Amino acid sequence: MVVHDATLRDGQHAVAHRLGVAELRGYAEAADAAGVPVVEVGHGLGLGASSLQAGRAAVSDDVMLSTVREALRHSRMAVFLLPGWGTSADLDRAVAHGADVVRIGVHCTEATLAERHIGHLRERGTEAYGVLMMSHMASPGRLAEEAALLAEYGASGVGIMDSAGHLLPDDVAERIGAIAGAVDVPVVFHGHDNLGCAVANSLAAARAGAGVVDACARGFGAGAGNTRLEVLVPVLERTGFATGVDLYGVLDAAEFAGRAFVPAPPFPDSAGIVGGLAGVVAAFRQHVLRHALPAGVDPRDVFFELGRRQAVAGQEDLIVDVVAELSSSGRARTGAHADERKEGTA
Amino acid sequence: MVVHDATLRDGQHAVAHRLGVAELRGYAEAADAAGVPVVEVGHGLGLGASSLQAGRAAVSDDVMLSTVREALRHSRMAVFLLPGWGTSADLDRAVAHGADVVRIGVHCTEATLAERHIGHLRERGTEAYGVLMMSHMASPGRLAEEAALLAEYGASGVGIMDSAGHLLPDDVAERIGAIAGAVDVPVVFHGHDNLGCAVANSLAAARAGAGVVDACARGFGAGAGNTRLEVLVPVLERTGFATGVDLYGVLDAAEFAGRAFVPAPPFPDSAGIVGGLAGVVAAFRQHVLRHALPAGVDPRDVFFELGRRQAVAGQEDLIVDVVAELSSSGRARTGAHADERKEGTA
Repeated sequence: MVVHDATLRDGQHAVAHRLGVAELRGYAEAADAAGVPVVEVGHGLGLGASSLQAGRAAVSDDVMLSTVREALRHSRMAVFLLPGWGTSADLDRAVAHGADVVRIGVHCTEATLAERHIGHLRERGTEAYGVLMMSHMASPGRLAEEAALLAEYGASGVGIMDSAGHLLPDDVAERIGAIAGAVDVPVVFHGHDNLGCAVANSLAAARAGAGVVDACARGFGAGAGNTRLEVLVPVLERTGFATGVDLYGVLDAAEFAGRAFVPAPPFPDSAGIVGGLAGVVAAFRQHVLRHALPAGVDPRDVFFELGRRQAVAGQEDLIVDVVAELSSSGRARTGAHADERKEGTA
Repeated sequence: MVVHDATLRDGQHAVAHRLGVAELRGYAEAADAAGVPVVEVGHGLGLGASSLQAGRAAVSDDVMLSTVREALRHSRMAVFLLPGWGTSADLDRAVAHGADVVRIGVHCTEATLAERHIGHLRERGTEAYGVLMMSHMASPGRLAEEAALLAEYGASGVGIMDSAGHLLPDDVAERIGAIAGAVDVPVVFHGHDNLGCAVANSLAAARAGAGVVDACARGFGAGAGNTRLEVLVPVLERTGFATGVDLYGVLDAAEFAGRAFVPAPPFPDSAGIVGGLAGVVAAFRQHVLRHALPAGVDPRDVFFELGRRQAVAGQEDLIVDVVAELSSSGRARTGAHADERKEGTA
């Protein structure tokens, strides 16, 4: 079982992408010493994403990659790219910096958007993975079809991200099982902890045939956080999945992250839980709170309405529309939307 | 499905039993407004436990009980008693204060210790539950036998606590299933989050036949914390278990606890994870850290050794012995106990 450590990429969301050279180096050395097989690095939204809109990273992609490359003696280095945020030129630079694994992330029904990048990387001889995000929005069968496309394009591995933290263990098992039955390459699962099930979901994924599970030290990540690496490793070991990761080593890496990043790890608060129930991407969180509160609208109503409209990343404008509608319809803060809540938790 | 809210009792561990009248009243009112059916109150170790050794509560049992009783309009009030810490006189006072449900907690193989108290309460017409603690230390079959004894004594409900946070969902399902097959009264599950599985364990318990699941707002509790109430409620609802608890109401109660108790909820750090793996009761945590660190002994080694010796609450002296032995055997901080760790995670 390959444990893929996304602390220095997805974990950046928990610190507004402000990890500096000392934190990057220190954590990468600790993860390497623990025998973690893959360490992913970058801005929270991947290569090329540092910007006013997505948040400025503390250091450039070049500095992140060269720092982590230098710190890793055994672990492989991975990067993440969202087409639109990053480009082929970013991929080329990452490969030149020694990235061993590149992941291309696309919306769960848009595998075709990854074809060009996967092909480009394959031509260069770099290992390319394709991952389907917001995977609660597609059926297991549809995800299997999309994953099969990614494999056809030449992906060395394919998988799903539970980007909104909406899935429960049975949902994950069904999805991973369908994908594992449709492709011959390793299957990835990447969880978020909005409903407190990230570890159990990852275990369900492993049992359903996943070969790679993602996790972050202390669960550092956007909103409610990711799967906790230092918890997942011993749980996998205890249930018969050998990870090759040293227990004390990974505990030490997590303690380092706790000291060097921020002391209190992310946890599911109201916005995180409702975001998970409604199936809204974690990146919307700050925008929802920022727009809803001054308008006197309950942010929880906004999450449920966004979920009903199947909003996805890139559709941040919808937040403003929904807040305005809820505000003008006088449904703000009435606390009486029993029907909506029921629907949201259904 | 009855959700039993232990925030004002087990949650006290997270704040050194320092909840005052304003916090008790404010939380009880919020839980009551949310429709939480049962609210438990007391010192973290239950009635009569406030002491130098266990930690002094901010207010007396009498003040806690009268404050919460006054705040609850619909919810039932519960108390907890560990024979040895509390006595029959404490039970009588709690009943006089209007406690609707009394739980007697005993080690998982010691149901007989609860006989007298359960009988005493039944004679007074008070609902008495018997709960088996450290339930990872007994087989499902043995737990079923002990639970059947509790039911014979007249318990209105019986159940298990995963006091060390050691169990995984399959372990819970097996244990709850065995107990549900052996008794005709509601079965309780009480989880801790050391291995990040408290919510999934509680869901597994519900599916295996539990009728009562315990949880605390924000997971407030000893060490790595308890099952998160505000996460568990919507997860149960989504999976078909009606709780009668209002989603926004329970989210509001949790936000109140976050503001009024301490802002950062408990989470599984190294000591919590290793304590869970080793199966050591959370109450040992502070003692292990306090003795091991000055002696230059890795606390993680102490947890694993205590787990091997099947240490239980009341045997705190063992901590000093183990630290001394590990220190003198020169095994301190060598970081090379691969065999022990393996055993610990086996």
